Amino acid sequence: MNKDEFRENGYAFVDWIADYMEEIEKYPVKAKVEPGEIKRKLPGSPPEKGEEFEEIFRDFKEIIVPGMTHWQHPGWFAYFPANNSPESILAELLTAGMGAQCMVWATSPAATELEEVVTEWLRQLMDLPGDWVGVIQDTASTATLCALLTAREWASDFQVNERGMDKNFTVYVSGEAHSSAEKGMKIAGFGRENIRYIETDDKFAMKPEELERAIIEDMDKGFRPTVVIATLGTTSSGAFDPVEEIGKICKRHKIWLHVDAAHAGPAAMLQEKSHLFRGLENVDSFVFNPHKWLLTNFDCSVYYVKEPDLLTRTMSIDPAYLKTTHDQEVKNFRDWGIQLGRRFRALKLWFVLRSYGAKGLKEFLREHIRLGELFQSIIEETKDFELMAPAELGLICFRFNNGKMEREELDRFNRELMERINSGGEIFLTHTVLREEFVLRLAIGQRTTREKHVQRAWDIILQEAKNLKKQFS
Amino acid sequence: MNKDEFRENGYAFVDWIADYMEEIEKYPVKAKVEPGEIKRKLPGSPPEKGEEFEEIFRDFKEIIVPGMTHWQHPGWFAYFPANNSPESILAELLTAGMGAQCMVWATSPAATELEEVVTEWLRQLMDLPGDWVGVIQDTASTATLCALLTAREWASDFQVNERGMDKNFTVYVSGEAHSSAEKGMKIAGFGRENIRYIETDDKFAMKPEELERAIIEDMDKGFRPTVVIATLGTTSSGAFDPVEEIGKICKRHKIWLHVDAAHAGPAAMLQEKSHLFRGLENVDSFVFNPHKWLLTNFDCSVYYVKEPDLLTRTMSIDPAYLKTTHDQEVKNFRDWGIQLGRRFRALKLWFVLRSYGAKGLKEFLREHIRLGELFQSIIEETKDFELMAPAELGLICFRFNNGKMEREELDRFNRELMERINSGGEIFLTHTVLREEFVLRLAIGQRTTREKHVQRAWDIILQEAKNLKKQFS
Repeated sequence: MNKDEFRENGYAFVDWIADYMEEIEKYPVKAKVEPGEIKRKLPGSPPEKGEEFEEIFRDFKEIIVPGMTHWQHPGWFAYFPANNSPESILAELLTAGMGAQCMVWATSPAATELEEVVTEWLRQLMDLPGDWVGVIQDTASTATLCALLTAREWASDFQVNERGMDKNFTVYVSGEAHSSAEKGMKIAGFGRENIRYIETDDKFAMKPEELERAIIEDMDKGFRPTVVIATLGTTSSGAFDPVEEIGKICKRHKIWLHVDAAHAGPAAMLQEKSHLFRGLENVDSFVFNPHKWLLTNFDCSVYYVKEPDLLTRTMSIDPAYLKTTHDQEVKNFRDWGIQLGRRFRALKLWFVLRSYGAKGLKEFLREHIRLGELFQSIIEETKDFELMAPAELGLICFRFNNGKMEREELDRFNRELMERINSGGEIFLTHTVLREEFVLRLAIGQRTTREKHVQRAWDIILQEAKNLKKQFS
Repeated sequence: MNKDEFRENGYAFVDWIADYMEEIEKYPVKAKVEPGEIKRKLPGSPPEKGEEFEEIFRDFKEIIVPGMTHWQHPGWFAYFPANNSPESILAELLTAGMGAQCMVWATSPAATELEEVVTEWLRQLMDLPGDWVGVIQDTASTATLCALLTAREWASDFQVNERGMDKNFTVYVSGEAHSSAEKGMKIAGFGRENIRYIETDDKFAMKPEELERAIIEDMDKGFRPTVVIATLGTTSSGAFDPVEEIGKICKRHKIWLHVDAAHAGPAAMLQEKSHLFRGLENVDSFVFNPHKWLLTNFDCSVYYVKEPDLLTRTMSIDPAYLKTTHDQEVKNFRDWGIQLGRRFRALKLWFVLRSYGAKGLKEFLREHIRLGELFQSIIEETKDFELMAPAELGLICFRFNNGKMEREELDRFNRELMERINSGGEIFLTHTVLREEFVLRLAIGQRTTREKHVQRAWDIILQEAKNLKKQFS
């Protein structure tokens, strides 16, 4: 492809994205395809000769796009959002154009230093402790794994890296913690048997007294309590573990405290939500995802640590072929995470932070929270619907319940209700299980979601519930 | 940013990349900046109000770009390449525009199925065993970690995930294996002490008889030999471990065999190089990086496994909020790697494979190999220069040696020579250490590198060596 063709195709792609953003509501938010349907439309073998670019683009539009679930659709209420924004998309284009691999300072000085700058900007915006230092990871899964590994080395005086894992290290989470916590614990070699799931209160938040009881019990049995993972904004219900009290317990017993604020993190920018983020001064590591609720293309996860030396001692490798002149003066982020190779993720974050400014970001967050409160009040005021967990930041857990169904029937009703809601294609929401009960989750956070979309979502939910009720009774 | 502004800015970015690709040689390949120089040009705090997009773009061009090391420069001979291509850049734009997070089939059916298709296409192109199944990872670091974890679980009958790590698991690599192998072993809890570095032969390839000796010795001492990592194309010198013989040893002793072909992998497409890839039928897992030497934007690493069930049993998590209707019928790639969240990486690979076709890809690879052979013959024919390792695929290890310097002086001379070569800004090469001797590495694989660039590289090397010789004597 020569320069003129690149420009021509580039313009065409930009146009396509511009149209896609404008017309996204014409697509069903959740793909209406059956397993295997896309695969059957694609040849089983690669072409021998290169094909025309226009042909590939045409297949993209005709085969791939109709098979996608559209995360940027304003009717996206599933899981958590993964927002992008025009500014972030264009920054990703520059990143791809430069094609830099940012493993060490020398391979990309501006990328390394911009990463230092934007993570510091976010630290200020979110009013996080002044001694925290940031690094960008791909996902919270990886960041949490880094935390577990650092805790493991810190607790063993770096002897696990040296001699292998000890079997008496225990880890603590609430039953509401994200699955990546359990996965990370397995990867790091703790073993599922050494995970303690701490009971939660009626708001699905970890009970600190239960945590301390479990820690003491383990110490009495000869275990070494190593790390607590507290969640600010759980995936299931948006619960906030009491980090302030948990932090004191961790300090008392010399336990690493990692905080997973993957989705809720940006809300720390809001004065009126600052109470949810109290007690961070006793936290050792903290992760949140700008790729969830901060307009920045997936993947982009920001990980803060209080003592970077512990992280880099855990992660550093030192082969001859990676030594560079300034190693003592610069940050080589290859030693701040799992992967050696690193994308230039700071660029999109920089474009987003500058384009929106503190003011724009806060307005963006507040509007979703307002819409969440609106939806919550609708649920609370509507007969036959009930709120299933407190709603803080635009995530509402609810279900249909007319008081006439047994537990199992209730679950069946709500599961069927969800299928019907999603099959229409206008909105997409998902479920969770709380105290063994099937619960619908409506997560508001997509960039383009407006009040009318939330209203429309409610109209659909109500209508489908009415239809289904007739069928059930 | 409204639709018109998006188009306008998008066109401007496309134009910038088109110019960047054309004029890349006007930049010094290795950034000429001092530590902290970029950071000082950026404000310490984020803006309160959103800024004009043009301003951010201007700062990108004036502050960020001059601080970058340019991986797509034809004078890139450092490390290994991380190629992009116009087709891959544009595909990344579409990926960013859609902003899909591809963790499970339901969140992105077309992405999942396209990933199955392109990894199968590559398997065919590279003539890999027919029972291998592929998945895209971000980097080889992650893929190798997956291999280590799967081996750990397989060897322990999945009891490490359950009960924590055993301390008698041993792992085997040559001293020339990539640092990500050691890092992965530490992460997975094996411990550095349980790593056996197997001696290499005069081609820097693992000695199979030494491997078997170490395995038997460990078994006699009560260890459980768990995994061997063999490398096809080591980072230091491009050495090929004898996978065929190693595979037989692994089979005999029931040891997992993982192959790291991160850079060299694509050469498996070439008939004349197929002898380097013999014996893969006894391999359990295999990784190579299309983002290195196959025109596909970083990050994109393809990981093949013979028995996917072992991988997914190792990695699977099963929280209520991630269950979907078709879980039994589809591949949910979240269970095929470390991270839950996943980018749509298959798209760029699809664009590349279709745009170039088998024929175009092979021509691309062959040209770099030819240029490597050319440079190798120059080194062999030039007085005072010597080849330091056999060169197979465009990676040439060499040094200046006039036979008059002691070891330490020789190292000092070549280190200084490298600094001078790189400081000119026209080419960038890096070093390694082989048998404790400082060696220069010239890695040919950048998409735009032509014969004239290799010739020019040699002119610069020769001239700088002459200048330096005067100063040393």
